[in-house]
Amino acid sequence: MPVNLLPPSPGALLPIKGVALGTAETGIRQPAREDLLVIHLSAHCRVAGVFTRNRFCAAPVIVSQAHLEKGRPIRALVINAGNANAGTGEPGLADARGTCAAVAALLHCRAEQVLPFSTGVIMEPLPLERLIAGLPQCVAGMREDGWAAAAEAILTTDIVAKGASRQVSIGGKTVTVTGIAKGSGMIHPNMATLLAFIATDAAISQPLLDEMLGDAAQRSFNCITVDGDTSTNDSYMLLATGEAGNAEIDDAASADFAALRDAVTELSIALAQAIVRDGEGATKFITLRITGGANEAECRQVAYAIAHSPLVKTAFFASDPNLGRILAAIGNAGIVDLDAGRLRLHLDDVLVAENGGRAAGYREADGQRIMAQAEITVRVELGRGDAAATVWTCDFSHDYIRINAEYRS
Amino acid sequence: MPVNLLPPSPGALLPIKGVALGTAETGIRQPAREDLLVIHLSAHCRVAGVFTRNRFCAAPVIVSQAHLEKGRPIRALVINAGNANAGTGEPGLADARGTCAAVAALLHCRAEQVLPFSTGVIMEPLPLERLIAGLPQCVAGMREDGWAAAAEAILTTDIVAKGASRQVSIGGKTVTVTGIAKGSGMIHPNMATLLAFIATDAAISQPLLDEMLGDAAQRSFNCITVDGDTSTNDSYMLLATGEAGNAEIDDAASADFAALRDAVTELSIALAQAIVRDGEGATKFITLRITGGANEAECRQVAYAIAHSPLVKTAFFASDPNLGRILAAIGNAGIVDLDAGRLRLHLDDVLVAENGGRAAGYREADGQRIMAQAEITVRVELGRGDAAATVWTCDFSHDYIRINAEYRS
Repeated sequence: MPVNLLPPSPGALLPIKGVALGTAETGIRQPAREDLLVIHLSAHCRVAGVFTRNRFCAAPVIVSQAHLEKGRPIRALVINAGNANAGTGEPGLADARGTCAAVAALLHCRAEQVLPFSTGVIMEPLPLERLIAGLPQCVAGMREDGWAAAAEAILTTDIVAKGASRQVSIGGKTVTVTGIAKGSGMIHPNMATLLAFIATDAAISQPLLDEMLGDAAQRSFNCITVDGDTSTNDSYMLLATGEAGNAEIDDAASADFAALRDAVTELSIALAQAIVRDGEGATKFITLRITGGANEAECRQVAYAIAHSPLVKTAFFASDPNLGRILAAIGNAGIVDLDAGRLRLHLDDVLVAENGGRAAGYREADGQRIMAQAEITVRVELGRGDAAATVWTCDFSHDYIRINAEYRS
Repeated sequence: MPVNLLPPSPGALLPIKGVALGTAETGIRQPAREDLLVIHLSAHCRVAGVFTRNRFCAAPVIVSQAHLEKGRPIRALVINAGNANAGTGEPGLADARGTCAAVAALLHCRAEQVLPFSTGVIMEPLPLERLIAGLPQCVAGMREDGWAAAAEAILTTDIVAKGASRQVSIGGKTVTVTGIAKGSGMIHPNMATLLAFIATDAAISQPLLDEMLGDAAQRSFNCITVDGDTSTNDSYMLLATGEAGNAEIDDAASADFAALRDAVTELSIALAQAIVRDGEGATKFITLRITGGANEAECRQVAYAIAHSPLVKTAFFASDPNLGRILAAIGNAGIVDLDAGRLRLHLDDVLVAENGGRAAGYREADGQRIMAQAEITVRVELGRGDAAATVWTCDFSHDYIRINAEYRS
């Protein structure tokens, strides 16, 4: 039951010149469902990527990073759903490299020009033969308007496909940005436990593409959490084919850079929020806005302490204004010199707590009214400085337990 | 459905000379249930305490710490269940002090010789009049064999009362240690989200009593977690009346100190494990044994990363050997230079993972067999050094959500 989230409407995902997508059904994820995607890139496409910081990162993450480091133009991405190829040791690395080699053979490029991505169950061998058997169908069906099918093919426990497009004018040329993402559980920043692929036809230098990706990640996928678990496979890729015809963006201070960066960031935020809205078992979409911190890091600490508290998350699920749990979570955030007496807590526009306790004007009925909403903003003023941070999360429901208890059955 | 946990059998909780306990029903927690406890101490009883590190700590915690700092002999503890008197600001502090004053009037001592404790809902005003109205019944009924009733009176969402006794011979005298504890949710170390009161008739100097409490806390209540939330009200008290007739223990290197410390620690571990066994919704009792760390702190980090992962906890609930989730949790523990290839993971005696992936001899059926047990030991060898740590936790079930979604209804 995603919270106010619909799949992209037909035609909403705009093609990107120089990016073709093809999908296939391998049976790895489940019968009668496409679960394999090849994204083919034009010859001069630039690619930037950020990856999970989980120390047990998956074989495809290791191989993708190694292939990016070789510096050759990347010609294809291959993504499978249903098996994460993580916790698979040396055989897993061989499988990821074998996947790349098979794609390369079909597309007449080198294996190190292919980046592999996987999502699904951890610590089970990748069914390499079935994956490879699906590749010819992907390649045969590649087309520039294949984004909608691609958004479906990468899903695991997601209920709704996630994708969006933006257009912006750069140097008199219309530039398009289209992105898709998947992720529903194991969602926590660094990287935000997900796969996201955003492509643009803009021409932009490699350093600025890297910078743009880092900025956008910090403001989008690194601001969400479903359950505090960081996946072994998170990857967020930004692809720029340069085929829009604009003069290459190579000045970080330029209006063109700002326009493209804003479009990419805005689209990334939309995808990141879509992941939270489709969080496993989610019934509420919660915005945590922390202000008045001494620095941004402590604001994020407070936000995540609230977002990761199972007691707070179950109270949201129950629509129960048991708001002392939020105060307790803030007290646990690890800010040693926090002065509880200076803190103010709002639910939407309702002042709930100040001066170390319940606000004088607070009425349970007001808290009840806000808690019953599907979208709620929790505002915490720390009273320590001028820094702020925003984090998006969801509640914790019976369905989260059901989904994760039955994940493999 | 507590995991292999029974309440103390009749007569199991041995009286401590110099400690009398009386209970009453105030209606604060729920009708027809005792929820108020007064523990009366003999004149020369020594008291040591450790408290929550939550920055939003409750009014009774602040008042108890202040009263302990005054250095007068403590003559009574007063504990109420059903309302935490936390997040209640100045009025909450006044209520906690008012509670102490009312106890002091009945027991003919000073208010600062009374320590208050509360557990229950946060951010609701303490019903002080109802609490005070129950005190005379507590005082009238005080008796040295009141431990079983006391163990019941302090419970909140706990299903089973928790208490135990130990006896040890010190200098030819039999010394008794009896303790009770409560706690089921908001269970995480520092302090371990609970109330625990342990008393002994041993004579021991104040510095050694303080040291003993710190040691025991570090090895018991600071090694458990149910949901990663640290309460605003955690308090763990050690009371020593000195009435056993032993020569006062005043040498930390003595066999007497070691004997008493071991008894107190062992009893504390039993109470701490009882809290996990009765964790909200618990169906499994999990021991996390981390070895081969560079230091104890990183072993604890790894243990808590596993213990706090909702995905790992739901896999235990489902008896599903989806053990890659444990690897992912270890990878998230924040050990930057962790070498996943050196790590070994056992479930009980079954080697699950090594060399960065599934162990060659591992069979799913073996994992399935262990996961179906009510008690499971997860052993992680980090391959980095000689340090080790043990943490106890439970699984995450439908009932956890139910209990916490319906907590106030």
